[in-house]
Amino acid sequence: MAELLTTDQYVAGVRAGDPAILGRAITLVESARADHRLAADELVQALLPFSGSAHRVGITGVPGVGKSTFIESLGGRLTAKGRRVAVLAVDPTSSRTGGSILGDKTRMPTLAADTNAFIRPSPSSGTLGGVTRATRESIVVVEAAGFDVVLVETVGVGQSEIVVHGMVDCFLVLMLAGAGDELQGIKKGILELADLLAVNKADGSNEVAARAAARTYASALHLLEPSHPDWTPPVVTCSGLHGVGLDELWAHVEAHRELMVDNGAFAAKRLQQQISWMWSMVDDRLRVAARAIPQRAAIEAAVLAGEVTPARAAADVLSALRD
Amino acid sequence: MAELLTTDQYVAGVRAGDPAILGRAITLVESARADHRLAADELVQALLPFSGSAHRVGITGVPGVGKSTFIESLGGRLTAKGRRVAVLAVDPTSSRTGGSILGDKTRMPTLAADTNAFIRPSPSSGTLGGVTRATRESIVVVEAAGFDVVLVETVGVGQSEIVVHGMVDCFLVLMLAGAGDELQGIKKGILELADLLAVNKADGSNEVAARAAARTYASALHLLEPSHPDWTPPVVTCSGLHGVGLDELWAHVEAHRELMVDNGAFAAKRLQQQISWMWSMVDDRLRVAARAIPQRAAIEAAVLAGEVTPARAAADVLSALRD
Repeated sequence: MAELLTTDQYVAGVRAGDPAILGRAITLVESARADHRLAADELVQALLPFSGSAHRVGITGVPGVGKSTFIESLGGRLTAKGRRVAVLAVDPTSSRTGGSILGDKTRMPTLAADTNAFIRPSPSSGTLGGVTRATRESIVVVEAAGFDVVLVETVGVGQSEIVVHGMVDCFLVLMLAGAGDELQGIKKGILELADLLAVNKADGSNEVAARAAARTYASALHLLEPSHPDWTPPVVTCSGLHGVGLDELWAHVEAHRELMVDNGAFAAKRLQQQISWMWSMVDDRLRVAARAIPQRAAIEAAVLAGEVTPARAAADVLSALRD
Repeated sequence: MAELLTTDQYVAGVRAGDPAILGRAITLVESARADHRLAADELVQALLPFSGSAHRVGITGVPGVGKSTFIESLGGRLTAKGRRVAVLAVDPTSSRTGGSILGDKTRMPTLAADTNAFIRPSPSSGTLGGVTRATRESIVVVEAAGFDVVLVETVGVGQSEIVVHGMVDCFLVLMLAGAGDELQGIKKGILELADLLAVNKADGSNEVAARAAARTYASALHLLEPSHPDWTPPVVTCSGLHGVGLDELWAHVEAHRELMVDNGAFAAKRLQQQISWMWSMVDDRLRVAARAIPQRAAIEAAVLAGEVTPARAAADVLSALRD
């Protein structure tokens, strides 16, 4: 990482929309180093008053559903209408693969070159907790930089979509027509999170199947608890590749926001998300503090020597932390 | 949950191989309730001296790869040879779907009826951390009950396979012939964890494609860091459905164990896993303690009222916890 700027320099650069400083500010919030964490905390606190006005939309779907192409296409339409679009990603697998397949700029070449868009791949720090924290703080940074749409991309299996659902206003699930039986169990879990469903790749010979799938999902949704009693998640078909159905889809996203603002659910959800954010911070700091105790090496050595059980050693760590 | 037994009663029942008490002991370690946690900690400590002798094998693969059928078939072969087989599962999505598709007894009817097998679906507690803890402790319980093969099943996308990799001796990855491009990024991450790879559903018209896929994966593995310098992960084809290739596959699992025991890596890995287990316990207890502070309701109310930022509230929680 380049040398750190002062908080004032970061704030000024971010607020002025300087892309280089914006990038460096996000690199800072992604860092797990203790001194960087201190600087990042100060930066996020300083930017917080300028954040909060963007529309935060989560986008999930299994690998192969066409997320990159969809976001490239949707993002371009939004910037053409004068919106400023930031794309963030949550991909806990990126720490192993050494590179994220989400938020990959090479997969979104037009949007990556668009001065009204900012694309950031998933941070590749080790844990889902670390990635979550970094993404939540990155939302604050890009909002303070004036981006008014934040798209948060994630993969559609595992815990990461729950995490993203917990940091956005609207959660969009991309589906494909004709997936296997065993996937249904996972899909049900995702369906319960969805504010909006879109069957993607509804083009060419796949269009009929996509429409049929959309009807099936719409029926399935009727059997589930809706995300909010006032809102039945719409199911649409679209083609990211051919840019079909994206305006209709975005109109639903806007309608969802309008309704939720009117009935007070929007503000309530944001405050509830602040509670989750608070607990994430608490857990994060406790993790770091526990691993920073001076007795750590001795305790780990005793476990490796087979002298103490993990439970005994854990008790020793907690007792050292208390002192 | 039925009334708790005393630790001595659990230990006696588990050691005697009483299936009802074994099930209740695992239900106890899966519980998140504070009083249950205390009893579970005591039980795990009491059983720990009787654990450790089983061969722990992780099995992962994307939904649809045929894990249930594979485990049903492999497990039956092992019990026929006199082994006692426990099947556990780690599926963090089960907390949303309200039921696990992993370790589902109805998908393994023959093994479920086998007196030398014990199948337990994934615990459906909320967090990956909670599921991890429960599964780690369940391994101790089933080993103390005399099971000498523990198969830990998980899904092949997300963090759960890293978690399972961290609690087993051998990590088996099931693959399919002919999956999409975008999956490759995720596969690379999983390939790096694999001690053994099997292309499943190598039957009928799919056999030729499966063999070709096995060759491709074998070449890909040569480009990656192996899981241990002494071991090149074998790539085999098999058919869980028709029971083909399972003996050869298990011979590789046994050969891996033998080599790792001989070169000392087996014992070293187990000790290293105890360190991870210790840190999981530390994090788990800190999480619980932080949420049990008397000021919790007041701090959350202040966040909901918009009076304090999440960072300020987190600092308040930490300061309350210190006192």
